[in-house]
Amino acid sequence: MSVTTPQGFTAAGVAAGLKSSGRLDLALVVNNGPLAHAAAVFTSNRFQAAPVLWSRSAVADGRLAAVVLNSGGANACTGRAGLADAEKMAEWTAASLGCDVTDVAVCSTGLIGTRLPMERVLAGIEQAAQDLSGEGGPSAAEAIMTTDTVSKEASFLSPHRWAIGGMAKGAGMLAPALATMLVTLTTDAVIASEDLATALRTATGFTFDRTDSDGCMSTNDTVILLANGASGITPELDEFTEALTGVCHSLARQLLTDAEGSAHDIEVVVTGAATEADALEVARAIARSSLFKCAVFGNDPNWGRVLASAGTSSAAFDPDAVDVSFNGVDVFVGGQLGADRSEVDLGSGRDVVVVVNLHAGEAMATIWTNDLTYDYVKENAEYST
Amino acid sequence: MSVTTPQGFTAAGVAAGLKSSGRLDLALVVNNGPLAHAAAVFTSNRFQAAPVLWSRSAVADGRLAAVVLNSGGANACTGRAGLADAEKMAEWTAASLGCDVTDVAVCSTGLIGTRLPMERVLAGIEQAAQDLSGEGGPSAAEAIMTTDTVSKEASFLSPHRWAIGGMAKGAGMLAPALATMLVTLTTDAVIASEDLATALRTATGFTFDRTDSDGCMSTNDTVILLANGASGITPELDEFTEALTGVCHSLARQLLTDAEGSAHDIEVVVTGAATEADALEVARAIARSSLFKCAVFGNDPNWGRVLASAGTSSAAFDPDAVDVSFNGVDVFVGGQLGADRSEVDLGSGRDVVVVVNLHAGEAMATIWTNDLTYDYVKENAEYST
Repeated sequence: MSVTTPQGFTAAGVAAGLKSSGRLDLALVVNNGPLAHAAAVFTSNRFQAAPVLWSRSAVADGRLAAVVLNSGGANACTGRAGLADAEKMAEWTAASLGCDVTDVAVCSTGLIGTRLPMERVLAGIEQAAQDLSGEGGPSAAEAIMTTDTVSKEASFLSPHRWAIGGMAKGAGMLAPALATMLVTLTTDAVIASEDLATALRTATGFTFDRTDSDGCMSTNDTVILLANGASGITPELDEFTEALTGVCHSLARQLLTDAEGSAHDIEVVVTGAATEADALEVARAIARSSLFKCAVFGNDPNWGRVLASAGTSSAAFDPDAVDVSFNGVDVFVGGQLGADRSEVDLGSGRDVVVVVNLHAGEAMATIWTNDLTYDYVKENAEYST
Repeated sequence: MSVTTPQGFTAAGVAAGLKSSGRLDLALVVNNGPLAHAAAVFTSNRFQAAPVLWSRSAVADGRLAAVVLNSGGANACTGRAGLADAEKMAEWTAASLGCDVTDVAVCSTGLIGTRLPMERVLAGIEQAAQDLSGEGGPSAAEAIMTTDTVSKEASFLSPHRWAIGGMAKGAGMLAPALATMLVTLTTDAVIASEDLATALRTATGFTFDRTDSDGCMSTNDTVILLANGASGITPELDEFTEALTGVCHSLARQLLTDAEGSAHDIEVVVTGAATEADALEVARAIARSSLFKCAVFGNDPNWGRVLASAGTSSAAFDPDAVDVSFNGVDVFVGGQLGADRSEVDLGSGRDVVVVVNLHAGEAMATIWTNDLTYDYVKENAEYST
């Protein structure tokens, strides 16, 4: 299960010397056709890294033949020189593969504000092009890791003999959105670029867009989907979208579970909302409360902090009618104390499910987040010094 | 310098047994006239604690004779029973002082979701009423502390022989807004209630409203201003507002410096904005970034995290024209790398001033915040367990 699971894709991960540790740090994912359809979504941060600017333009025509990715430097806030570096990465990749430069997307992750050591990057691209293989997916996934402790891969195999593969990196600044989330998805299904874009927007909207590790949005986030039609199968768009959403959901959960220093995976479910937008606003307000996230780290089902966060939203609800449960225990019911918080067990596992029923309608939404821990502070206080 | 600094105010702080530590936990501030003018601002959280609901109604006519405050329990999310408790606190105070029950405001702070031990509270009110004195300000300030490590007081003395006094508590959930910020201000100036309300809105708008410790908004926040006219002096409203803003600013800075586990006081100044609202939006986005706040804890002038936060705002600016400085060192200038970050010293003091110039206009605004530390996580993971 990797980006090379679908037919007609090759990949490689090499150590180009961008990471002082000597680990893999440059990846190449290549679509060998017959089609070269593609779609992508990018960070909505207004400070966009050079590779984001380049790739946005490259994918505008719905075509990509390859994605080159590096860790060890984000090439963000690097001005014109940085943009020239991103373009040169695409040029070198195109020359190594014999494709058009505008069919190459570029993704970078690492520190903001430092130039990439281009000699090493370009030599790494040449090496990766030589190492490409149908078994290269796992190496590629490893090469894009930064503070990730494990590589993230997922796949879907249709009984109708088409497949989706994916890889992701990211361990902070997920909203979705700064140590950077990079995702590359591949499929051998036969799908037009416009349909790919529709399916990708839907899939990311229900998964990565609802994954909020620390409320911080990256300058580099990129999700790219490549489709080559090598299976010869054209699935229904609904079927494809559902499968793609499943792969994205798996990758998003892997990102959160490996989020910097986290000790709990938290699912904030808001039900009974007047609209989905209301449900999302309340869920996001709760998922972004540092006090709530510290309480979960302390294994404390602190519904007071849940309510205080919900109370900052503009969603339609009556504060006297709200229910809150932690892992199935109704601790606050209809504006009154419910079961004693001692009945809630948060200490024996990683999973925490908080359900807030607004009793204002039928809509619902879920945000996935994690707790706020000593290790999160440590990692982010020491990361760039 | 305390709430008893202006003429005609008495106060007391007693140990009613609400805190297991046996420390002072109930305070009374009494206006002895001749006037009983008052104004107040309350949390905008939609979950409002019982004492907030009571006090909002009590001050609606612009009159208050006394404020009774307790630590050791927030009386929030306690339903109708909690509202009856708050009203009983006002009744007991009014009976002890011989004033009208609707002229008594109530403030509570501590854990959300637990009822107050009313027998102890009422006995404490009687004791405090007996202990009232013109030197009782400092004891009252001590009695409202929760996780505060020091009491907070401030005052202003006009050369024209009128004065303002104030006390505050709060060490987290400042936005302004859940361990709770409570502020009581007193003045012996002669000022109509409507003018008090105008001055208080202006003063809190430039101080407490721009103090954002952890982005969390309390269910109990209350700022009450009492005026008795005992000095016989009627200052110009501008002069009074400026002095009141100064007292509020002093209290707000004391709250932040004592914020839970903080190691740095951070001033985020956004200049060159098209509008003040834009400046505030950008400053608040930066002040709420956990990654930025962890970096400051690590003494790292991480301008990349400053830009990434600014980039999530909808303020008018060109990302290629933004400057960032840390403590006077221009680390990012016009979208390009500036001085080396090693030139910035964040380690030798508590004060950090980040200036972001958007180069989009003439407006500016400042948000005061603090860093995100191990001790913040510790205090908020362990607080209620």
